[in-house]
Amino acid sequence: MLKVDLNSDIGEGFGPWKMGDDAALMEVISSANIACGFHAGDPDVMAATMALAQRHGVGIGAHPGFADLQGFGRRRLALSAAEVANLVTYQLGAAQALARAAGGRVRHLKLHGALSNMASEDATLARVCFEAALKVQPDLVIMVLAATAMEQAARDLGCAWAGEIFADRAYADDATLVDRREPGAVLHDPAVISGRILTMLREGAIIADSGKRIPCRIDTICLHGDTAGALSIARGLRRDLEAAGVQIARL
Amino acid sequence: MLKVDLNSDIGEGFGPWKMGDDAALMEVISSANIACGFHAGDPDVMAATMALAQRHGVGIGAHPGFADLQGFGRRRLALSAAEVANLVTYQLGAAQALARAAGGRVRHLKLHGALSNMASEDATLARVCFEAALKVQPDLVIMVLAATAMEQAARDLGCAWAGEIFADRAYADDATLVDRREPGAVLHDPAVISGRILTMLREGAIIADSGKRIPCRIDTICLHGDTAGALSIARGLRRDLEAAGVQIARL
Amino acid sequence: MLKVDLNSDIGEGFGPWKMGDDAALMEVISSANIACGFHAGDPDVMAATMALAQRHGVGIGAHPGFADLQGFGRRRLALSAAEVANLVTYQLGAAQALARAAGGRVRHLKLHGALSNMASEDATLARVCFEAALKVQPDLVIMVLAATAMEQAARDLGCAWAGEIFADRAYADDATLVDRREPGAVLHDPAVISGRILTMLREGAIIADSGKRIPCRIDTICLHGDTAGALSIARGLRRDLEAAGVQIARL
Amino acid sequence: MLKVDLNSDIGEGFGPWKMGDDAALMEVISSANIACGFHAGDPDVMAATMALAQRHGVGIGAHPGFADLQGFGRRRLALSAAEVANLVTYQLGAAQALARAAGGRVRHLKLHGALSNMASEDATLARVCFEAALKVQPDLVIMVLAATAMEQAARDLGCAWAGEIFADRAYADDATLVDRREPGAVLHDPAVISGRILTMLREGAIIADSGKRIPCRIDTICLHGDTAGALSIARGLRRDLEAAGVQIARL
Repeated sequence: MLKVDLNSDIGEGFGPWKMGDDAALMEVISSANIACGFHAGDPDVMAATMALAQRHGVGIGAHPGFADLQGFGRRRLALSAAEVANLVTYQLGAAQALARAAGGRVRHLKLHGALSNMASEDATLARVCFEAALKVQPDLVIMVLAATAMEQAARDLGCAWAGEIFADRAYADDATLVDRREPGAVLHDPAVISGRILTMLREGAIIADSGKRIPCRIDTICLHGDTAGALSIARGLRRDLEAAGVQIARL
Repeated sequence: MLKVDLNSDIGEGFGPWKMGDDAALMEVISSANIACGFHAGDPDVMAATMALAQRHGVGIGAHPGFADLQGFGRRRLALSAAEVANLVTYQLGAAQALARAAGGRVRHLKLHGALSNMASEDATLARVCFEAALKVQPDLVIMVLAATAMEQAARDLGCAWAGEIFADRAYADDATLVDRREPGAVLHDPAVISGRILTMLREGAIIADSGKRIPCRIDTICLHGDTAGALSIARGLRRDLEAAGVQIARL
Repeated sequence: MLKVDLNSDIGEGFGPWKMGDDAALMEVISSANIACGFHAGDPDVMAATMALAQRHGVGIGAHPGFADLQGFGRRRLALSAAEVANLVTYQLGAAQALARAAGGRVRHLKLHGALSNMASEDATLARVCFEAALKVQPDLVIMVLAATAMEQAARDLGCAWAGEIFADRAYADDATLVDRREPGAVLHDPAVISGRILTMLREGAIIADSGKRIPCRIDTICLHGDTAGALSIARGLRRDLEAAGVQIARL
Repeated sequence: MLKVDLNSDIGEGFGPWKMGDDAALMEVISSANIACGFHAGDPDVMAATMALAQRHGVGIGAHPGFADLQGFGRRRLALSAAEVANLVTYQLGAAQALARAAGGRVRHLKLHGALSNMASEDATLARVCFEAALKVQPDLVIMVLAATAMEQAARDLGCAWAGEIFADRAYADDATLVDRREPGAVLHDPAVISGRILTMLREGAIIADSGKRIPCRIDTICLHGDTAGALSIARGLRRDLEAAGVQIARL
């Protein structure tokens, strides 16, 4: 029987500002990547989000990013390896404490935004991030973009890891995401999305736009909840996966 | 035999900016209150400071403050109890992770600046801070300003705590510090400072300016290292305490 | 013929986060209080908001607040007079430059959040803020909460000023706003709101909850646009004022 | 008679943190590049620095950088052209207001750190920065790294500009600075520095390490004051230039 985790970025508000419908999304996902205050989230948003995840039995993940609230962690910043390691350590620690205060614990780590993009291209950078995290919590599950340099880094470290694919993004032949600005890069049709994901899970491979199969471990699927459309796609995918006999289970 | 801990605020640089001579001060103190990134410190400064404390066998403490770099956490900010709890939790978690990465662990917690001032006047606020910290780390030693509302809050919680006095500040009859702007509020004469502290330790009491004795537990003495004068006072006090047979030992 | 300005806080997004429907609100108001980056707004949000105000012929105002994004400038912060003056100067200058870049200019200044609350209770603080602003731009119109310490400060300075009342808030007998947590403190019925404001304009007085009249200059009415309900109240009030022959004109 | 301006980055403290001896440096330079709060400086530091510059008759310049206090604006950040334009506009406006409050006015603009490095390699980016600044203040003098893409951008804009060289840095044959990590990249010998600068001024050319002459307009020389050594080099250079009959005059 096929089994998969559904994850989403969560707790991306800051101070007075909201983003996405976290409460609704918590009913769909099994793992939450919770922003740690550098690119989004603040101690209060984090506390509320941890509590929400606990109430829904959703797995808590730390989701560290660059210290760039204005750019939402999506702008590349040239940091040294030590600077990257320390910012991962710091944010993971903060997440651990807030999870504990909510009666839970951090189970996984997923890098955010530009830091994730950079680590998916650079196994050395990915390793720096993952080693920093594992030093703090050795049993952490590292979420990696399947078939990228991140996966290589996790394999090299011999740590627990989960391969991730995106529900709504087209893939190029090298397993990278097609640039958002390209036509067809972002998928919107729920039926297409569900069908494609089911095929990927059954074949154990990313299916590129060209039809090419890239065999890889698929442990978790990334969903979005920042728009009504995204939320409806997420719900539809969960329903279709369950109808097809795929078990949704957190990492 | 008398025994006391010597503590100081440490790791108060930020980015390119230095403050105090941490390396020199580490040779004098037995416990370091390390800034956690909100009023001073950043992940890199924290990492370097944790490593320095480890090398010197100095006890690591989390030193959380208000999120006010410009004001160095010294300006009062009106927060709700939940906001205060979450900022203590967040900063303690970050400190724990960076301590672990440096091969150590956080042993104590000391509030910083305006947050400390407010908690020393308000046992409810002090309790909020301490409970938040203990929920994350139940064996934490809570450093309290001796004979203030902080001490009351720690006693009520039944947690491990350490009573603190200041080496270089005059006390009023109610055990509060004389306002810095008053003449004589800050002591500068090393001989006077050492003599006064030795008397307080032997009598187990704060000695107010008026000569009044305020009996209290004195477990740790706060030193400063931000100026050459302060560092020299700190060194002198340690020497004089040791010469008088007082054992310097971390909490 | 009666004439009044309609103002609202605008440009309160930050980075990826939106707040309120600025485009819709711009069609209702005649003056925009634009956040200056300390409690909300960033250079990009400000540039877009300035351009939007220009397109709608809406008067541009600088809306400085405390440097507290997380608290949205609503948490009291204990600053010195010099610190307050400098933060007003800084934010006003930034707003002037962005207004100029959009082909416009700053016409008025309105304090935000906790800074506004504090200045409405303390004429000395209000004067510090207004003097700092007038030193940078002597022809600025200072928006004051009518019949408060702010108005006194503006009168003492002999500067151009505009007295402001709130469309949807109940008043106490001393012209202060009834605490939001009190029942009836915030008005929701469009007909009640319009009727009350028309009476206030015709009588030239704030009408307190008790029925007491507090005579004062009413130059501008504060509207909100952060919820669909608020936007609909704002539109209704404008329509009712115009139907009653009141001319809506910017300061 | 030869005439040159001496400039330095000034006002680089933040909150409780100091950097460099601004008061001493103000006696040596004729133009001050004042940090605008994004990479260093805050409204209070800026106000004090503007007042200091006024007292010394030193020309006030806005010195905008990336919003990265921790990295001191020295880490490259991938921003869009609009984002860069808005951050220059914002910071220039803030500087103008604080200069006005101090009884002065901004005369020149110099980009800081990574933003400067990026603009010196990319004429399009340089033009974006300079156009944004000139839109706010058309009579601004734009300080450019002599013989770089910045100079090209300023020439294309037809604006007032000043060509800058560094007192203590070695040049490569393409007029770029030799990487700080290379041996000999930073000069320390006061006599060598003064001799080299005098030759460059007399020949109207940058002299590269190889001996190659790169003819260019030299209007201003960049000095440093962040260490005792740097300050002494700065003083020595001013003395040697005056002794050689070069007039020191602000832009």
